[in-house]
Amino acid sequence: MTDSLDQNEKIKKLRELIKDIDIGMLTTIDEDGSLRSRPMSTNSQIEFDGDLWFFTDASSHKVTEVEQHHRVNVSFSDPHKQQYVSVSGQAQLVLDRNKLQELWKPELKAWFPKGLDEPDIGLLKVSVEKAEYWDASSSFVAHTISLLKAITTGERANTGKNEKVTFK
Amino acid sequence: MTDSLDQNEKIKKLRELIKDIDIGMLTTIDEDGSLRSRPMSTNSQIEFDGDLWFFTDASSHKVTEVEQHHRVNVSFSDPHKQQYVSVSGQAQLVLDRNKLQELWKPELKAWFPKGLDEPDIGLLKVSVEKAEYWDASSSFVAHTISLLKAITTGERANTGKNEKVTFK
Repeated sequence: MTDSLDQNEKIKKLRELIKDIDIGMLTTIDEDGSLRSRPMSTNSQIEFDGDLWFFTDASSHKVTEVEQHHRVNVSFSDPHKQQYVSVSGQAQLVLDRNKLQELWKPELKAWFPKGLDEPDIGLLKVSVEKAEYWDASSSFVAHTISLLKAITTGERANTGKNEKVTFK
Repeated sequence: MTDSLDQNEKIKKLRELIKDIDIGMLTTIDEDGSLRSRPMSTNSQIEFDGDLWFFTDASSHKVTEVEQHHRVNVSFSDPHKQQYVSVSGQAQLVLDRNKLQELWKPELKAWFPKGLDEPDIGLLKVSVEKAEYWDASSSFVAHTISLLKAITTGERANTGKNEKVTFK
């Protein structure tokens, strides 16, 4: 089966799926080597280039985990619509006040009652390297998006052709 | 917040959640160190002790991955019901004919048209070491279940007290 979507269309679809599903499961590698996941909300926000941001306690266990193993996965599932997303990337803690203010939403008060005055508040940024999505409307062909950035220049690398794999 | 459920009640709840959601995201470690996930169906089956079995192509890429890195995570999400499950364990390929016959269901023909006569058919077994679930009905306290087995004896180890963490 051919994958007829171009890179921009795939990123657009990826953003729509993540916005709709909103809560992903962030998988990290624990200090004992086991893989753990927990629900995290994107607050329906996703960067233009696919990067994800999650508000977090800066001293939480998952932050300790990503400081030791940067590689993470965030998966988004909607079994009712048969839509699934896998985002592979590298996570880092960001404490920049401007970014916190830019992304803050009032509904986050449920988790951070003092808002941006919470002493431990931070952001977990997932820099996306690769994403795949499966959508019932496309017969479970996986659409793969490579977003590897050239670290040295900050420019987006030429990502070459996209792969297709089948859902099984 | 206290976690008032005992181990058996937690396993019962875990099995119900996995049966209902059915399709999980299996996260593996790729050869380049990145974490990838893809949807996998449990066919609503889960072993008494929490182990998970997935029908698979024995020569698929994810099988190659788990043969190099046994540690995996399977997450189950139902954002509509606000139910989330994380299963941490070790995966292995199983080709035992009796087990294949025991777990086979006719609806699997969608993926394996020749049924158990498919030359490449196999099972991916995830031996569960730890599971956590979050359920809207319990205010997003994570219920943690330790299922570490004593490898040398095959007996279930004394798992000690359960941890509680909050959803954030």
